Amino acid sequence: MKRLNKTESAYIAGFLDGDGSIYVRIKPDKTYRFGYQICPYVVFYQARLGKKFLKYLQNLLKIGYLRDRKDGIREYIIGDKKSIKKLLYSLLPHLKLKKAQAKLMLDIFTYKENVKNSQDFLRLCRSIDKFKNLNYSKKRKQTSKEVKILLKSLTP
Amino acid sequence: MKRLNKTESAYIAGFLDGDGSIYVRIKPDKTYRFGYQICPYVVFYQARLGKKFLKYLQNLLKIGYLRDRKDGIREYIIGDKKSIKKLLYSLLPHLKLKKAQAKLMLDIFTYKENVKNSQDFLRLCRSIDKFKNLNYSKKRKQTSKEVKILLKSLTP
Repeated sequence: MKRLNKTESAYIAGFLDGDGSIYVRIKPDKTYRFGYQICPYVVFYQARLGKKFLKYLQNLLKIGYLRDRKDGIREYIIGDKKSIKKLLYSLLPHLKLKKAQAKLMLDIFTYKENVKNSQDFLRLCRSIDKFKNLNYSKKRKQTSKEVKILLKSLTP
Repeated sequence: MKRLNKTESAYIAGFLDGDGSIYVRIKPDKTYRFGYQICPYVVFYQARLGKKFLKYLQNLLKIGYLRDRKDGIREYIIGDKKSIKKLLYSLLPHLKLKKAQAKLMLDIFTYKENVKNSQDFLRLCRSIDKFKNLNYSKKRKQTSKEVKILLKSLTP
């Protein structure tokens, strides 16, 4: 990722606070050890005239990818840990609305690195649940509750 | 208005680019010389958890007012020329998506100060029409066309 100066970081923090989101999804995936993949996201959204700008932002940051949704919204998605970490560390001093989400994301990366057993994994999922109180989401399906049920069913 | 430092300006510019708008309305009002009032706006929008932040932003900037819409969106509206001028001059170096709108707004203020007759007023309204190409608006009703028709009907 490009190294951002102070005003670039402040601008992008404002842009993310205005119209972006920071969240983690728990995706059911049997190829993973505990039956779920942990997917972190930082996403910027724009419609119409803002679409070009997301392309510009991607070229500037040199991370993430663009996705055009069927409803006309373009998403600029940063979905890999390394890029998210670098970006959030640079935005953190400037974020206001989404500072708590950014901190939680960075904490979750640390927890994830230290998962050794299913109890640790469940604790990780409970931390991810906290995004629910910080973000407004109607769609969120997978929570630690579901993971707990699955983990129980797997325990011999 | 509070004097903003560079990073504050950059942050607010990003926030405005992300989720705000800059526009001028031409409101029919017979108490005005040419039958219309020219109303400039800089507006920030937030729902749910962002509402508190708009209150914070208003306290920081010490300009404008808040309005809670029936659909749950809060608007932070800056609608007076003096405040808009100060704010936009400070944001202009950092704005990306809405830089053209900010420049157009400042031009319109200059044109407006120099309106001497109905021809000047019509030219001013034509400049305001340019927001249409910069912003996406389905609702916009009053354009220079309507003003032209009214002005013609008023000409002796």
